[in-house]
Amino acid sequence: MTPALGVCYYPEHWPEDWWDRDAARMAEVGIKFVRIGEFAWSRFEPSPGDLHFDWVIRAMDVLGRHGLKVVFGTPTATPPRWMVDKHPDMLAVDANGRKKGFGSRRHYDFSHLGYREEAARITQLLADAVGNHPALGGWQTDNEYGCHGTTYSYSPAAEAGFRTWLEARYGTIEALNEAWGNVFWSMEYNRFDQIELPNLLVAEAAPAHDLDFRRYASDQVAAFNKVQYDILKTKRPDLPVIHNFMGRYTEFDHYDVAETLDVASWDAYPLGHLAQSDEPEDVKRHYMRQGEPDYQAFHHDLYRSVGHGRMWIMEQQPGPVNWANFNPDPLPGMARLWAWEAFAHGAEVVSYFRWRQAPFAQEQMHAGLLRPDSEPAPAYHEASQVAAELRQTAIAGTAAKGRVAIVFDYQSEWAWQIQPQAKGFSHSAHVRAVYAAFRKHGVDIDILSPSTKSFAGYDIVAIPALFAWNDALREAIADFEGHLLLGPRSGSKTQNFAIPAALAPDLPSNLLDAKVLRIDSVDPTLEVEVRGGGGAVRHWRERIETRAEVEIEDADGWPVLIAQGKLHYLAASGNKALVQRIVDYLIAEADVPTLLLPAGVRSRVRDGFRIYVNYGSGAAVLNPAADESGYVLGTAEMPAAGVTVAKLAKAS
Amino acid sequence: MTPALGVCYYPEHWPEDWWDRDAARMAEVGIKFVRIGEFAWSRFEPSPGDLHFDWVIRAMDVLGRHGLKVVFGTPTATPPRWMVDKHPDMLAVDANGRKKGFGSRRHYDFSHLGYREEAARITQLLADAVGNHPALGGWQTDNEYGCHGTTYSYSPAAEAGFRTWLEARYGTIEALNEAWGNVFWSMEYNRFDQIELPNLLVAEAAPAHDLDFRRYASDQVAAFNKVQYDILKTKRPDLPVIHNFMGRYTEFDHYDVAETLDVASWDAYPLGHLAQSDEPEDVKRHYMRQGEPDYQAFHHDLYRSVGHGRMWIMEQQPGPVNWANFNPDPLPGMARLWAWEAFAHGAEVVSYFRWRQAPFAQEQMHAGLLRPDSEPAPAYHEASQVAAELRQTAIAGTAAKGRVAIVFDYQSEWAWQIQPQAKGFSHSAHVRAVYAAFRKHGVDIDILSPSTKSFAGYDIVAIPALFAWNDALREAIADFEGHLLLGPRSGSKTQNFAIPAALAPDLPSNLLDAKVLRIDSVDPTLEVEVRGGGGAVRHWRERIETRAEVEIEDADGWPVLIAQGKLHYLAASGNKALVQRIVDYLIAEADVPTLLLPAGVRSRVRDGFRIYVNYGSGAAVLNPAADESGYVLGTAEMPAAGVTVAKLAKAS
Amino acid sequence: MTPALGVCYYPEHWPEDWWDRDAARMAEVGIKFVRIGEFAWSRFEPSPGDLHFDWVIRAMDVLGRHGLKVVFGTPTATPPRWMVDKHPDMLAVDANGRKKGFGSRRHYDFSHLGYREEAARITQLLADAVGNHPALGGWQTDNEYGCHGTTYSYSPAAEAGFRTWLEARYGTIEALNEAWGNVFWSMEYNRFDQIELPNLLVAEAAPAHDLDFRRYASDQVAAFNKVQYDILKTKRPDLPVIHNFMGRYTEFDHYDVAETLDVASWDAYPLGHLAQSDEPEDVKRHYMRQGEPDYQAFHHDLYRSVGHGRMWIMEQQPGPVNWANFNPDPLPGMARLWAWEAFAHGAEVVSYFRWRQAPFAQEQMHAGLLRPDSEPAPAYHEASQVAAELRQTAIAGTAAKGRVAIVFDYQSEWAWQIQPQAKGFSHSAHVRAVYAAFRKHGVDIDILSPSTKSFAGYDIVAIPALFAWNDALREAIADFEGHLLLGPRSGSKTQNFAIPAALAPDLPSNLLDAKVLRIDSVDPTLEVEVRGGGGAVRHWRERIETRAEVEIEDADGWPVLIAQGKLHYLAASGNKALVQRIVDYLIAEADVPTLLLPAGVRSRVRDGFRIYVNYGSGAAVLNPAADESGYVLGTAEMPAAGVTVAKLAKAS
Repeated sequence: MTPALGVCYYPEHWPEDWWDRDAARMAEVGIKFVRIGEFAWSRFEPSPGDLHFDWVIRAMDVLGRHGLKVVFGTPTATPPRWMVDKHPDMLAVDANGRKKGFGSRRHYDFSHLGYREEAARITQLLADAVGNHPALGGWQTDNEYGCHGTTYSYSPAAEAGFRTWLEARYGTIEALNEAWGNVFWSMEYNRFDQIELPNLLVAEAAPAHDLDFRRYASDQVAAFNKVQYDILKTKRPDLPVIHNFMGRYTEFDHYDVAETLDVASWDAYPLGHLAQSDEPEDVKRHYMRQGEPDYQAFHHDLYRSVGHGRMWIMEQQPGPVNWANFNPDPLPGMARLWAWEAFAHGAEVVSYFRWRQAPFAQEQMHAGLLRPDSEPAPAYHEASQVAAELRQTAIAGTAAKGRVAIVFDYQSEWAWQIQPQAKGFSHSAHVRAVYAAFRKHGVDIDILSPSTKSFAGYDIVAIPALFAWNDALREAIADFEGHLLLGPRSGSKTQNFAIPAALAPDLPSNLLDAKVLRIDSVDPTLEVEVRGGGGAVRHWRERIETRAEVEIEDADGWPVLIAQGKLHYLAASGNKALVQRIVDYLIAEADVPTLLLPAGVRSRVRDGFRIYVNYGSGAAVLNPAADESGYVLGTAEMPAAGVTVAKLAKAS
Repeated sequence: MTPALGVCYYPEHWPEDWWDRDAARMAEVGIKFVRIGEFAWSRFEPSPGDLHFDWVIRAMDVLGRHGLKVVFGTPTATPPRWMVDKHPDMLAVDANGRKKGFGSRRHYDFSHLGYREEAARITQLLADAVGNHPALGGWQTDNEYGCHGTTYSYSPAAEAGFRTWLEARYGTIEALNEAWGNVFWSMEYNRFDQIELPNLLVAEAAPAHDLDFRRYASDQVAAFNKVQYDILKTKRPDLPVIHNFMGRYTEFDHYDVAETLDVASWDAYPLGHLAQSDEPEDVKRHYMRQGEPDYQAFHHDLYRSVGHGRMWIMEQQPGPVNWANFNPDPLPGMARLWAWEAFAHGAEVVSYFRWRQAPFAQEQMHAGLLRPDSEPAPAYHEASQVAAELRQTAIAGTAAKGRVAIVFDYQSEWAWQIQPQAKGFSHSAHVRAVYAAFRKHGVDIDILSPSTKSFAGYDIVAIPALFAWNDALREAIADFEGHLLLGPRSGSKTQNFAIPAALAPDLPSNLLDAKVLRIDSVDPTLEVEVRGGGGAVRHWRERIETRAEVEIEDADGWPVLIAQGKLHYLAASGNKALVQRIVDYLIAEADVPTLLLPAGVRSRVRDGFRIYVNYGSGAAVLNPAADESGYVLGTAEMPAAGVTVAKLAKAS
Repeated sequence: MTPALGVCYYPEHWPEDWWDRDAARMAEVGIKFVRIGEFAWSRFEPSPGDLHFDWVIRAMDVLGRHGLKVVFGTPTATPPRWMVDKHPDMLAVDANGRKKGFGSRRHYDFSHLGYREEAARITQLLADAVGNHPALGGWQTDNEYGCHGTTYSYSPAAEAGFRTWLEARYGTIEALNEAWGNVFWSMEYNRFDQIELPNLLVAEAAPAHDLDFRRYASDQVAAFNKVQYDILKTKRPDLPVIHNFMGRYTEFDHYDVAETLDVASWDAYPLGHLAQSDEPEDVKRHYMRQGEPDYQAFHHDLYRSVGHGRMWIMEQQPGPVNWANFNPDPLPGMARLWAWEAFAHGAEVVSYFRWRQAPFAQEQMHAGLLRPDSEPAPAYHEASQVAAELRQTAIAGTAAKGRVAIVFDYQSEWAWQIQPQAKGFSHSAHVRAVYAAFRKHGVDIDILSPSTKSFAGYDIVAIPALFAWNDALREAIADFEGHLLLGPRSGSKTQNFAIPAALAPDLPSNLLDAKVLRIDSVDPTLEVEVRGGGGAVRHWRERIETRAEVEIEDADGWPVLIAQGKLHYLAASGNKALVQRIVDYLIAEADVPTLLLPAGVRSRVRDGFRIYVNYGSGAAVLNPAADESGYVLGTAEMPAAGVTVAKLAKAS
């Protein structure tokens, strides 16, 4: 597929006589897709049943006249004020028991079935009103599910739904009591209708109680999405249904939600997310105008997996945003670099948010391609440049399959939030550390879901910090002929959040003959050096009993990396140097080809091209790579924020 | 006016047979004014309608016999417990939706009209009971409006009041939707009675919604005060009605409240406020026994402006207080220095809080002029000394008009709290930085309200970080012939909290031809050096397009200070060195006379005298000033906590 | 008494056919006591009135067959879910007004009289069912009163109880108004039923209001315990009733609760408590695998006092726990060392928590003597070693009486939390500092309650930071012939939380002629050096007027330590060096014998033996002590985590 640019536009914010000029300029920039509609419910239906789609059809007419395709967003993230009068209990309740009111957005509870019907109703009305418009190019469901902490609600609706869900899952209350270990503190229930949500307790809830609540909440997001998907696909089976997910957001299982999506898109705000992240202060400062160099790429690869191979950027940061503690101006060129990197990782569309900076309301300090006075902002020119370069390079196809894959699992994210044991231990930190270590060598990576049935085709697969096996994954591991890296903490729980009878990592001894006997978790400022070769253990280490070979041990003689054939188990949380050392070792063992990338430079192969991007704040010079036949964009000398595209000698 | 001392006294706390001895000793100290009554409602009216003013009249008799004048405080900050039985909904509700109960003070909601009537009733009863007492010398309304976070309440009463206020302001719901930009996220209302308060939302409220709520809440304080003022002035047109405001407190617009006051007073606790402030740790330590050297002066000048030229200190810290995290003993002499400094800035009365340390209840660790065992505490002697020195120097008149003025605006304070964009950006920090830089040179400063109609008579006027222009101020700027310093962020919003169509700073191009294109806000630990002459930009800088002259630019070449004639615009937040550099430059340009003050020493001119105070912890030696004819108190050699008063050769 | 080992066991967690093997192994380890039952209510009574004690009787049969004695815990800390249906208002309410729900443990309100009756009912049923079982060796009431912040509840039940309690205490509302100083802010009540709990106020409550609420809440815990004690003692007057208290927990008065206990036990988790403590970071790191070296000992001595001379460890940490931010593996040998140290301080029983690590529910990461797969964990072997060593050394008797005593007072703990005046000032920090300074010299210490009537028999008594005298203590002080160390802040309040008329320290001038005039409290990073001999004052110093001798003064000339005969008053909070200097001085004055202990080593005498323990992470060599006749366990060369037992030449 030929990649394309898009933009987010709100015709309802501007005088109708501005629309034509706006559309003409979009076309001039080289934009193909325009997302509209997702916050406009109060204009579609100002009072109950009083429908007004005429204006938006006129807006689509205008856009279509300029050759633009519309991605239409269902407006369910912002129900109008009258909806709350109609369904006062549709408002979500926070973990402190406080109802969250109207006056911003996302003021609905995923568990509220009355609102779910209203969402279906407006979706159907919209599908009927604009579904056959010739400019229509796709749909977006709702907007940023879960944003502002909205996946979890502690409302009566959620409580009722949770009870029903539990009854469906466990059948009998005895089975639930057994699964949760409720005998522990006399927590045994007599009936499902006695079960409450795991907030506002005296001490922590049973971990299985907490995990099941998160599973339930995640299922409600999926169910909410499915209602819209079914309507939209019924109307237009030919058009993609997309949702715009977010970065670093894991409160629901995106794989599950994407079962009723054709494309996964995400909203990429590299600077805002770095500013709000828990990255070390030096990283935050060094990259404050560029974003963390692996953050975007990781999400591209993740959402390409979530989207069954199809990925868009629905919102791309164009300049300073408004929502972080500090909101720097990007380095000139970053709005171009981010787009190119997204395309390199397989993006079909990169859509800038937003066309014109709004001078009013909550996001008035958020940049657009245009300033509030309609003059071009810097990203306007960068987007034009990207459009020209796409035409010039004629890049198409999709991201090349990686030789390395990493399993990312939302439930493991929740599991270690529920039971960190070492404060700050997280599944995603381990995944990202392994990801970055491979990517440092220019190795292309795929992200896999935990329900992957086979690892065939990969040289190396890593499963860092996965909380519990499932049958598919056990089989994939048993059948895999490449190099596997597991742990720490992998397989340390059952699906019911209990320690498995055979103890972690709970694999057959013919695969890995090892048992985790106990855990030593310490303050993250403390490290135990690893013998012979650098790196250190921190946060977490496992006292392991094993007949496998000890590849690496720490200064106290505890095994750190053990291997049984090609299966490697990492029994500790490593610092950056240790993770790199282990990844380097695996790359060498598996003979995976690498690149010698300058600091700050990253790369990805798509469609016979290798795209290099320079996140550094200074210039960098590329080393020649044997499989390239020359540069089709840029040169080996890359300025800060530079992009260079190499043509591969043969398709990779 | 001849300045005088006062003290706060609670006859209801002590046996009646102590009163005469107390009054005699007050007179011995040289005290003229005694504030009483403001917390005694439960003694005036122990149960509903059971009135007892006899005891307080006897107390006034005793005080009067010793030549003391009484400032009588209305007791509305502490309604008795039975009042809450009568009006259970008079209690305020915090932003988390929790009703705040009885058991301390200020347990009422400014929006509650029933309580407002009760406040009128007790005020009228008091006016009738003591209004003609010969010892009466003035009134205080309530006590410390807003203390303990009481300006804002999120109660049903506040919600109802807000709706009425909005309807009066906007007339139609369409006008409100337009003003707030409610189309943005489908936040459009159908009716005023759908509008709720901006707390407990899913994401942030529209900034105009939040700002209007603050305006509304501020108006309720003003309305509450007016009720009492009208009653008290009707009774005694000749006596001043005063309220005691606080330091660093900005939750309501003090200019508005003071429209029904004759004098603005404030409660000066230099050590407690420094300890609780966000001043740098080294300042907190260096001045922990003196207070920050410009803190008191700034508030004196501010409240002199709020009070239409008349200012008192109603409560002056006499020793350690009880309410900060740490409560140091003041440096010996500070209770004298603080009084002298207040007089220098125009105080008519400095009233120590309190006469005798109370051995019981919440403030038992708060020092007084007497210890709990009735022996003199150190401040007793310092107050006596001040009284003697006032007689000796015969200082009178009021503070001299400054040659420099700075605009301080409460609404701008709220605006940047609502939308900091750079965490920690505040209007008052910018005002105080400019204030301190002028005062370092011994320049006398006046504070002006944003509704000032003319700057005539000043050499320099600074308007730092003012969020939105109004007609009066635009006219004052256009007409001003002196040097003006504006920005950063000045004029960057309309009154409806939107970006102006012409972009900031939104002045006619004949005054200032400049546009702010975008903002770069970064972590405060990062600075960008400024070229040629020192100083650095931090927190905030504006990318500006201008035809004005660039006076200063930063290391990246961004304009920092631009000038069009005498109008200067500062396009960044400067560190201390940069602000000083710019102020020095303006002083030189405007040829304002300065003093060469030793570190830690500050000065102010009143009534033909220049008062020097030494905040340093060591001795300091004054440089001779050309306009002085000698010292009438102290000498050029100032000890720590020293006060020196010079006579001016001619009235300044 | 011969000390013994115990273990905590939950037969309801395991298949019945595992019980016999478990019991046999317990006996092999050398365990004598097994605590059971305290979380099993849902198995005793799965639905209201449906009683099942058969299974637990069978479990006791099995344990008894292996010679084990059962300590039976009443299950009142974990009422089953149906109980909440029966008494919905039995749930406690937190200080924010939120009801705390079912789903963990301790979900009951001590003020709820309906639940108190249910607790009595199940206790009586249990006493009847198992009270005559031959294996029964004692009772435990409930479990860890107050854990998870459950002493205080802000429920309607608590409000009603508080009003009744106040009426009983004060008789008339006038007396209460007077005692609390309610005139201060018109806080005077007309009737007891107007009084509310001191949460959710606008500003802080009157300190006497807050203190009385804490006294009330503490009394409810005592009343709750008494109900069970009376039932259990009636059933079996011969068996001890025990409660398992916690470390660093002071929200109720343990002396009061222990009025209906025969033995005080506590749950010792040295590593978890150090990790969660406010100890300095270097201490936390240095001792993260051992625990703070004086923490355990202090609690042993405290609970020996609380328990009228009888003390157990009901739960002893055996390995990593699950509930701190970081949960390190203990240094090998610590599970042995902790037990030996407890015995040295008089423990009758040290009972490890728990037998087998539970693979399910909240504490699945908490180690046991067995791993979840039933294999021995390291502590299994250490416990076996301790059992063998107890037999070998034949230690018996109890802890020797100390020559030094320190008064520890729960009400003072509350007083300084209510009114710190210097943030972080605490009663217990002062007690622990003095404790550690004595113990550094191998001095054995006793802890005394504030109702101690005589100090006879001690050489030195310290009363650090006691808020208010009582008659008994005044008499003990007046009569004492040894050396006394008082202050800072001692005697600075009356029992009604007011400053005494004579000012602090409020002792007759023939005992101590001194008055505290005012307080200087500063940031804890600031210190004032003390003249001649080292040490510094920090946090807090008192300006004192005295005719006593000034032993130590600070660099500003303020008296720090004054003495009138053998009575010493410390007028400041000292750093570690100053406290040590003062303690060294007292030891020399009182001629108390000392030991020269290596760093990290501590000692205690019991029954003619001196037990040394090495908390250091390296080896240490003991210095010979004149009163010892040789080692019966270990040698002078102590490894890390080593234990050495010396025989005294004559009983101390």
